[in-house]
Amino acid sequence: MQTRTLPVAEARSLVIDTLIRCGTAPQNAASVAEALIGAELTGQYGHGLRRVPLYAGHVLSGRVDGHAAPRVRKTRPGTLLVDAMNGFAYPAMDLALAELPQMARENGIAMAGIGGSHHCGVAGLPVEALARQGCIAIFMANAPAAMAPWGGRRPIFGTDPIAFAAPLDGAEPVVVDISLSKVAKGKVMAAVQRGEPIPEGWALDADGNPTTDAAAAMKGTMVPMGEAKGTALAIMVEMLCAGLTGANFAYEAPSFFALEGDPMNTGQAILVIDATAMAPGATARFAELASQIEGMEGARLPGRRRQQIRRDLLTSGIEVDDSLYAEIEALGR
Amino acid sequence: MQTRTLPVAEARSLVIDTLIRCGTAPQNAASVAEALIGAELTGQYGHGLRRVPLYAGHVLSGRVDGHAAPRVRKTRPGTLLVDAMNGFAYPAMDLALAELPQMARENGIAMAGIGGSHHCGVAGLPVEALARQGCIAIFMANAPAAMAPWGGRRPIFGTDPIAFAAPLDGAEPVVVDISLSKVAKGKVMAAVQRGEPIPEGWALDADGNPTTDAAAAMKGTMVPMGEAKGTALAIMVEMLCAGLTGANFAYEAPSFFALEGDPMNTGQAILVIDATAMAPGATARFAELASQIEGMEGARLPGRRRQQIRRDLLTSGIEVDDSLYAEIEALGR
Repeated sequence: MQTRTLPVAEARSLVIDTLIRCGTAPQNAASVAEALIGAELTGQYGHGLRRVPLYAGHVLSGRVDGHAAPRVRKTRPGTLLVDAMNGFAYPAMDLALAELPQMARENGIAMAGIGGSHHCGVAGLPVEALARQGCIAIFMANAPAAMAPWGGRRPIFGTDPIAFAAPLDGAEPVVVDISLSKVAKGKVMAAVQRGEPIPEGWALDADGNPTTDAAAAMKGTMVPMGEAKGTALAIMVEMLCAGLTGANFAYEAPSFFALEGDPMNTGQAILVIDATAMAPGATARFAELASQIEGMEGARLPGRRRQQIRRDLLTSGIEVDDSLYAEIEALGR
Repeated sequence: MQTRTLPVAEARSLVIDTLIRCGTAPQNAASVAEALIGAELTGQYGHGLRRVPLYAGHVLSGRVDGHAAPRVRKTRPGTLLVDAMNGFAYPAMDLALAELPQMARENGIAMAGIGGSHHCGVAGLPVEALARQGCIAIFMANAPAAMAPWGGRRPIFGTDPIAFAAPLDGAEPVVVDISLSKVAKGKVMAAVQRGEPIPEGWALDADGNPTTDAAAAMKGTMVPMGEAKGTALAIMVEMLCAGLTGANFAYEAPSFFALEGDPMNTGQAILVIDATAMAPGATARFAELASQIEGMEGARLPGRRRQQIRRDLLTSGIEVDDSLYAEIEALGR
């Protein structure tokens, strides 16, 4: 496959120009581009430039309002409710991230719930940004249903992500970013496209039986991480992201992958704690725990691999398939 | 094995009288008894009356200060720091639970961190109590090290629990209560006592290899739930419970199971969100999600089994082995 390498600024402009051309307000396009380029820079290519055709398609079909201006309401001194107004998730998340650190400094802890939202991208990025401002952050999001409750067959939960980051004295933040399915659904989709089977343990068919048939898996459900524990945590994520904010539960949200249809109206939750709110020296203590992990043979500190990829790609630029580049260039023309 | 059945009030008095006799202040003994009886009533017998000999032993040896008066400091409008003063965890948790609902109503969200603490018992109980007051609650605790970072061999994390509860319109709360190890370490200890092997997948030996030898497992580490994802979440729990509060990280905390030694100085974190803080009707929406799960063949709503056991045992009374009853009766005499 032919590829080209784009400097980061050029990749960002490519996304911004494309989204504007397809009917997105400039400030929204800039916010989306920042998130997609952020995903590319951490090696999370499935949430990067490859999303542009679908995002642009959603704007063109009206599933996403490219001109939405998210609305924020401070419901209590420590809580924000953000309505993404069926626009992209990122401008709504940006609004929350602009207010949460100060609210956490004042109250010790603060939270934003986001409803009327869309695809949230790489969950580790907003928490890492908050940790760089001295905050401990937890981010959760829901997504259209792909996982059944443990023992059940019908999908109720998304493969919902939970991310966590904390500032470390003298080092980049620790960044945890997991999904509650055992593997990402994108891996099953990729197997379908390649016409290959999937390993046992990834997915169940529509009857709830283990399957290695990728197409059968797409009609069935993803296996949760940690078996029943994964779907137990998914209840928490769905309630905080959707139940609390008025967004769709996973089983109410229309598929992300259709170009046309109703808005997804998914939700996100962001919890932020000021690292200085309790005992002194918390960030030094966090660094001690991190160094125990980093110093252990065979173990890795979550987030470090992505941070290294970012350092490398900021220098080398972002590699894009020529075919994807051409597809993006043609969007909205 | 001979057993007897105690009415709940009698079981409570047994614990209170024993702990007072061993050197615990009456209000602390009452708090501990409530938690241990609460564990019995939800069928979590490993956190119930069986803990009395060890708890009493800790008081008798001075590892736990039975007369400790926990201290609470409101560090910000939304955050409490509680020092359990090397006493039992439960009086410190009670202090936090008394203040958090009102703080959450005022601020939308509130959090307590507890340091200088001890064994936290059944993590689902404090969150269920908060949910009965209209709050969404998350509880986490750390414990002496038993789990290595994924890929590593040395234990760094406890088999740390995460619990979550939310109020449901017209029904008892949903209560999620998981530990971050694949199975509880108590199951390995029980296998050692019976001289039996353990199933593969539960634990690793001291060299990091899978083992079915229960004694080798006790010298090694517990397998995390969800593989690397379990230990990633354990970083979050350790940082919130210990890093933020000044308590010991798991790898710094002396074993819970020794009668003598330094105080454990472990930590707990409790996050509370007012269910009315954001969109209206959240508890009705929570009930909708719960009914989707309860209505699905093969699936179960987390918490329901324990709530049924509680209803049954409140009527039938609590069954105790005669040998355990005699052991408790003899403590401190």
